[in-house]
Amino acid sequence: MRTEYCGLTDTRFLGQTVTLYGWAHRRRDHGGVIFIDLRDREGLVQVVCDPDRKETFAAADSVRNEFVLRVTGLVRRRPEGTVNTDLKSGEIEVLAHEIEVLNPSVTPPFMMDDEQISEEVRLKHRYLDLRRPAMQRILRMRHKTSRAVREYLDDNGFIDVETPVLYKSTPEGAREFLVPSRIHDGQFYALPQSPQLFKQILMVAGYDRYYQIVKCFRDEDLRADRQPEFTQIDIETSFLSEREIQDIMEGLIRHVWKRVLDVDLPPFPRLTYAEATSKYGSDKPDLRVKLELTELTDVVKDAGFKVFKSAAELKDGRVAALRVPGGNEQFTRKELDDLAPFVAIYGAKGLAYIRVNDPTKLNEEGLQSPIVKFLSPEILGKIIERTGAKAGDVLFFGADRRKVVNDAMGALRAKVGHEKGHAEKAWRPCWVLDFPAFEYDEESKRWAAAHHPFTSPKDEHVQFLDSDPSKVLAKAYDIALNGWELGGGSVRIHRAEIQAKQFATLGIGAEEQRAKFGWLLDALAFGAPPHGGIAFGLDRMVAMLAGVDQIRDVMAFPKTQRGQDLMVETPTPVTEKQLRELHIRLRN
Amino acid sequence: MRTEYCGLTDTRFLGQTVTLYGWAHRRRDHGGVIFIDLRDREGLVQVVCDPDRKETFAAADSVRNEFVLRVTGLVRRRPEGTVNTDLKSGEIEVLAHEIEVLNPSVTPPFMMDDEQISEEVRLKHRYLDLRRPAMQRILRMRHKTSRAVREYLDDNGFIDVETPVLYKSTPEGAREFLVPSRIHDGQFYALPQSPQLFKQILMVAGYDRYYQIVKCFRDEDLRADRQPEFTQIDIETSFLSEREIQDIMEGLIRHVWKRVLDVDLPPFPRLTYAEATSKYGSDKPDLRVKLELTELTDVVKDAGFKVFKSAAELKDGRVAALRVPGGNEQFTRKELDDLAPFVAIYGAKGLAYIRVNDPTKLNEEGLQSPIVKFLSPEILGKIIERTGAKAGDVLFFGADRRKVVNDAMGALRAKVGHEKGHAEKAWRPCWVLDFPAFEYDEESKRWAAAHHPFTSPKDEHVQFLDSDPSKVLAKAYDIALNGWELGGGSVRIHRAEIQAKQFATLGIGAEEQRAKFGWLLDALAFGAPPHGGIAFGLDRMVAMLAGVDQIRDVMAFPKTQRGQDLMVETPTPVTEKQLRELHIRLRN
Repeated sequence: MRTEYCGLTDTRFLGQTVTLYGWAHRRRDHGGVIFIDLRDREGLVQVVCDPDRKETFAAADSVRNEFVLRVTGLVRRRPEGTVNTDLKSGEIEVLAHEIEVLNPSVTPPFMMDDEQISEEVRLKHRYLDLRRPAMQRILRMRHKTSRAVREYLDDNGFIDVETPVLYKSTPEGAREFLVPSRIHDGQFYALPQSPQLFKQILMVAGYDRYYQIVKCFRDEDLRADRQPEFTQIDIETSFLSEREIQDIMEGLIRHVWKRVLDVDLPPFPRLTYAEATSKYGSDKPDLRVKLELTELTDVVKDAGFKVFKSAAELKDGRVAALRVPGGNEQFTRKELDDLAPFVAIYGAKGLAYIRVNDPTKLNEEGLQSPIVKFLSPEILGKIIERTGAKAGDVLFFGADRRKVVNDAMGALRAKVGHEKGHAEKAWRPCWVLDFPAFEYDEESKRWAAAHHPFTSPKDEHVQFLDSDPSKVLAKAYDIALNGWELGGGSVRIHRAEIQAKQFATLGIGAEEQRAKFGWLLDALAFGAPPHGGIAFGLDRMVAMLAGVDQIRDVMAFPKTQRGQDLMVETPTPVTEKQLRELHIRLRN
Repeated sequence: MRTEYCGLTDTRFLGQTVTLYGWAHRRRDHGGVIFIDLRDREGLVQVVCDPDRKETFAAADSVRNEFVLRVTGLVRRRPEGTVNTDLKSGEIEVLAHEIEVLNPSVTPPFMMDDEQISEEVRLKHRYLDLRRPAMQRILRMRHKTSRAVREYLDDNGFIDVETPVLYKSTPEGAREFLVPSRIHDGQFYALPQSPQLFKQILMVAGYDRYYQIVKCFRDEDLRADRQPEFTQIDIETSFLSEREIQDIMEGLIRHVWKRVLDVDLPPFPRLTYAEATSKYGSDKPDLRVKLELTELTDVVKDAGFKVFKSAAELKDGRVAALRVPGGNEQFTRKELDDLAPFVAIYGAKGLAYIRVNDPTKLNEEGLQSPIVKFLSPEILGKIIERTGAKAGDVLFFGADRRKVVNDAMGALRAKVGHEKGHAEKAWRPCWVLDFPAFEYDEESKRWAAAHHPFTSPKDEHVQFLDSDPSKVLAKAYDIALNGWELGGGSVRIHRAEIQAKQFATLGIGAEEQRAKFGWLLDALAFGAPPHGGIAFGLDRMVAMLAGVDQIRDVMAFPKTQRGQDLMVETPTPVTEKQLRELHIRLRN
């Protein structure tokens, strides 16, 4: 067995003979001596081969990049001036007595410390891509993360229970994968998009605190940020209030950041959904950005400017401003004009702005903008007052349906904030609470669950389930971190009669309820405790911790859409024989 | 929040007011006072409701079995003579100040401490079945087991890496589930039967030590001992010898038994496959059984008894005896006769036996059996000598192809051993080593891999890959425990040219190798380290630790073939619409 990993061989071993295993990272001849940087998952160590030892030298001479070696040799101090302080092993070197080539390597398509490698090459040679220290760091951090999660939950009385991967298709499973079974003629399993109902069943069954780090599935287009299989940290608890659940989950995230990054996260501020969307235009606000939206809907209701006035008069309309302090100097005219197509992505029809030259002059001299002439000094004054605009600022305006204004101005806030120095470099988590329970679907003319149909309404809003679902807020909560949704959950309905009522609100009649959810209503009727939980996306969490953008960079074997010869490839056509066995066939 | 779990509320809380949550396990009136046993996952506590507190008493009076309650009350000592030493809470009771019914329950189909419940009822009301303390104990033991596994592996430098559930179908995946993808027209993913190749890739990628507790899948008939999805503890290491891998894995099992059961397992004896099958008729011998098979093939080669002689003359024939000390008194004639149909299950055509009255008399008086007259005193003498038979013993004989003799006599050994007191009550693990690498498939007239095609031959047997595959032993090893295979693994081939050679032995030509395993051969050519690993079945391991027979009793939501209305049911017919979306349709 090895004496120590290459990267951890240091002065503890001075004067000792060690046996090391690893890959030849680089080999170089220098004054008739061969130097091999031997690499393993812990790092590099320098091996020196003297021409005096003929056999060993010959072996060293045959070594090429990525050859696999066993090296036995004497640990000695590096000569003065050659110490490498970047390496743990940087004070020593190993004088080789014996070198065995355990496996040669053909020439690799890239070096393990290359940084510019095309994604196609990386995915094609995934076994080499994963060998790069950069990828090893990420996957080890992933393990560290799941360990920290388990450590916290184990210590807090949570029980890890495995739920099925193959299960019965759910009524709402539009994007479910279906899995035909050979032994059940013409029947199909489904793959879960989440173990939601299983964890609720476990609460009914008295497990009190459940967790699982579990694969979930979604049959959707691949995107940079989305994979058909993803990993969820799935949690459920009984007998706790919304706030008690949140405190435990906040503790979990704080524990993970401490363990993995040695970072003490600040306490999580608590925003309602209404506050978050009003101030930040987002239900996952990036609190690193110091800019805020200012509500102007009431101010511009009577404005002469039609764009503002008509938006303010819409039932779900909103007018809001984004103030960028010092923006007047930061933005060129061209930059300002380029922001209109940016907000158009989110459905905004244009982007009005005012350069604030002198906020005391409520005219086109003090406030430089084509829209100023359409606004009375009174309204301009209120805008200046409400936004707190100062000389040198820029004000941006959004006026449209509420959703469009929030999406567009929220995105603008984040973009301008990061690009123009209005954001700090920090971890800024927060809770977002009191989400609306329902969304009205214009197409089907029905109320749909904003979260899922098992989410409990606020107690005081149960009365509105029949009369006005738009008034119902849910016991639902998210954790947002730097503009990403880290996790989300809710208190669930634990009483059968309220669940039935909520199904009715969603347009699911008594008969359909029985057919589709009869077993759930039964389970709730047999003594279900109050319960609630949360789910975190592990992939996104690791990506944030590791500081990488793409979800697929935190997965060992992600799905791709390139090259048919990849092992890690997207699905493969099956043979006629396989299909016959499955009693199905391709549609012509 | 609760002050403490019901089952853990004890004398620490004497004189204090506590808040408890739980289920009404039983309610009884006794002299005008109501007693409720309140139950949660940690156990029971006795709640006392005095008629003095009218409101509380009324609430208590409404309580039925499995109602969910919040109870606030004073902890006091139980009156003398009513202490229950079976309970942690048995010295105290809680005088209720306030009882809130959080959820009522309809009358459950069984009591939570019932022991005789039909499996159909259990599976139909799985949320209640799982609420039974018996099931909670098992699922918590399952968590304890996986925790112990992770603890040991984490502490020994193993990295948990997630491999895909959806991946490319493998060439040998006869029992693979296929998963059609909506977004890839007419293409299918497969579900893995094991992450074997992914873990080898991770070794090629330099991760050095990998593990995963991972779901695997097999599209086969349901049996008591087999589920279409099962959980595997999957492990791989680099740069270790067979023996070094085994020592680490033995340490893992020892750690698990210590942590979960507080049992110190003995060191694992090491048997070769040849020894195990010869002495115990099994490659997963139950070493609790003190009986052994005695080899007689050479002894009876020249016997006049045709059944023995012809078996001994077969190329793969075997004749063996099982000696049961004191069996003469233990077995009635009927019992002996009933053993013939038992061994017939394993293909044996009959079961010869001798009652040993007096081993010094080599005739029908000393040796009572219809076969004695066909055997010469010389051969009988050798049989007595070889088996060590004493007066009062019974000798059973198997004579057939080796496989039939081993299976039949191995099963007979276990049965007789346990039923007639020749087995100890103990944990008796062992290693079984040096498995044959190949099995000849008479049907296809080809050599097949006994383990899998990536298993390394013994170094000294590589030379026989071309000439005589029957001579090749593999670097393959199993851990057997009390007659079950706990896990199995092997050193893998790490050199591309030997892998290619082994594929050729299996009848896979160069072109087919390239098409099916090109990426593996490539990976091996880019500097694969020597590597090997093991996989344990978690379900079986937990079943053994928990002392239950059926695999499905250690799963929260097993698959069943009963009742179409079960949530946990086997697959479900899908709608025409779903099939249309999948571009497949049922075969008419």
